[in-house]
Amino acid sequence: MTVLKVGFQGVKGAYSEEALIQFFGDTVEPVTHKTFEDVCKALEDDTITYGVLPIENSSTGAITDVYDLLNKYDCYIVGESRVKVNHHLMGIPGSTIEDIKDVYSHPQGFEQSKDYLSGYNWKLIPYYNTAKSAEYVMNQNKKQIAAIASKKAAQIYGLHILANQINSNHQNTTRFVILGKNLTSDNTCNKISVVLSTPHKAGALYHVLKHFAENDINMLKIESRPVGHTPWEYYFYIDFEGNMNDTIIKDALAHMSKDCHHFKLLGNYKKSN
Amino acid sequence: MTVLKVGFQGVKGAYSEEALIQFFGDTVEPVTHKTFEDVCKALEDDTITYGVLPIENSSTGAITDVYDLLNKYDCYIVGESRVKVNHHLMGIPGSTIEDIKDVYSHPQGFEQSKDYLSGYNWKLIPYYNTAKSAEYVMNQNKKQIAAIASKKAAQIYGLHILANQINSNHQNTTRFVILGKNLTSDNTCNKISVVLSTPHKAGALYHVLKHFAENDINMLKIESRPVGHTPWEYYFYIDFEGNMNDTIIKDALAHMSKDCHHFKLLGNYKKSN
Repeated sequence: MTVLKVGFQGVKGAYSEEALIQFFGDTVEPVTHKTFEDVCKALEDDTITYGVLPIENSSTGAITDVYDLLNKYDCYIVGESRVKVNHHLMGIPGSTIEDIKDVYSHPQGFEQSKDYLSGYNWKLIPYYNTAKSAEYVMNQNKKQIAAIASKKAAQIYGLHILANQINSNHQNTTRFVILGKNLTSDNTCNKISVVLSTPHKAGALYHVLKHFAENDINMLKIESRPVGHTPWEYYFYIDFEGNMNDTIIKDALAHMSKDCHHFKLLGNYKKSN
Repeated sequence: MTVLKVGFQGVKGAYSEEALIQFFGDTVEPVTHKTFEDVCKALEDDTITYGVLPIENSSTGAITDVYDLLNKYDCYIVGESRVKVNHHLMGIPGSTIEDIKDVYSHPQGFEQSKDYLSGYNWKLIPYYNTAKSAEYVMNQNKKQIAAIASKKAAQIYGLHILANQINSNHQNTTRFVILGKNLTSDNTCNKISVVLSTPHKAGALYHVLKHFAENDINMLKIESRPVGHTPWEYYFYIDFEGNMNDTIIKDALAHMSKDCHHFKLLGNYKKSN
């Protein structure tokens, strides 16, 4: 039996791996990649069947690089998964809070733990991601350096937790999208994502949103991103409720796409709770 | 005569300092601060009269931390300034491209120069900001490390430019906001910024935007950010054309604020070109 290969960015112990296992269970083969874009390329090259990328954090907002990739690559959202993000401070076995001078983590790890960190005078050193910071601390094997990462990363890299759950917001959650090569839908799908750009004139975005309001379609989110080399023009990424086989939705999508310069249906999938 | 103190984030040679001098000229005293938030605090404490913070880059989008600070602090946008961002690769005098192993820069410096960087196998090390990376390379004084920063940073820190203008997009521009303690307006002001949150129901954002469309007000930008500890609710930051003393604008603002949970007029200022 061939095992399904699913790609994620980071090293073992990353929050993305947790999202992957939550969605697919533990019978798939998680495949690590260096960057978000590498996951999209692997999907394009068929070396993986699905990819899992973080799209939004409840405290710090959109992961904008991932939004840009959804528009750049010929891939589609086939599902989503939410993971509670709890950060812990960790060092090598035998280290104590008093030993620490330098702390490594992803900038969002610092941002999400800033209330706790403000009580200390540590040097905060931005690093690739939380799990890689834990790996780095293990490899350095010095008592004065620590990492901010997940409990799972501490287990994997044999680190000792010095302070538990240091993130300010205990509801801190990251939403991940599951990407596939094809646009799929079945009757359990209740959320749609699109990306569009509007003509550069007064009221253009409003006229696009009219199609949601007039058909009582519930818009869940709007995110704007620059249009590459054209300064101060934007792509709008919009999430809304619905199934693309529903006639009202079909009609709204058809009308909307006519009002837009650029329009891509990014996916129809089941909303996670 | 007292010299006006204007704060910015970073060290001498930062793009923010360039924006500051472009807006105020060279008769003010630029004051360096460690973080964006420190600039807002200095404004609050009256240790500076104005602050200059980057809000948006034409290639990489919103600087989301700054959006959040505009809502958190009792400060207002009194102007804006745009600076062309050209990144250069620089090392200590005597170093060559062949010597380089590690490159330091802000993650956006890497992101904006990724086409150039993809031709080399250098280790990219994320650092606080571009100017601080240049300072670090000077202090390390090693031929194998380089920084990606501005030409001005190379001059200030005595570094030698190894490759000119390595950013992929030569139209790469950062927009900065000038912050003051008071909401001000005169008849040259033609751009308004607001932040608002809507009730969590279908069509709520649409009904707010209706006030723009019905009054033929040109919306320039919409940006969404999470509402702190309430997952999956958003603040919308909206820029539009107009002067707040104009009757149509006054009425639209009054109606809009009634439809919102939270509403703050962030400023009325002159649009930069």
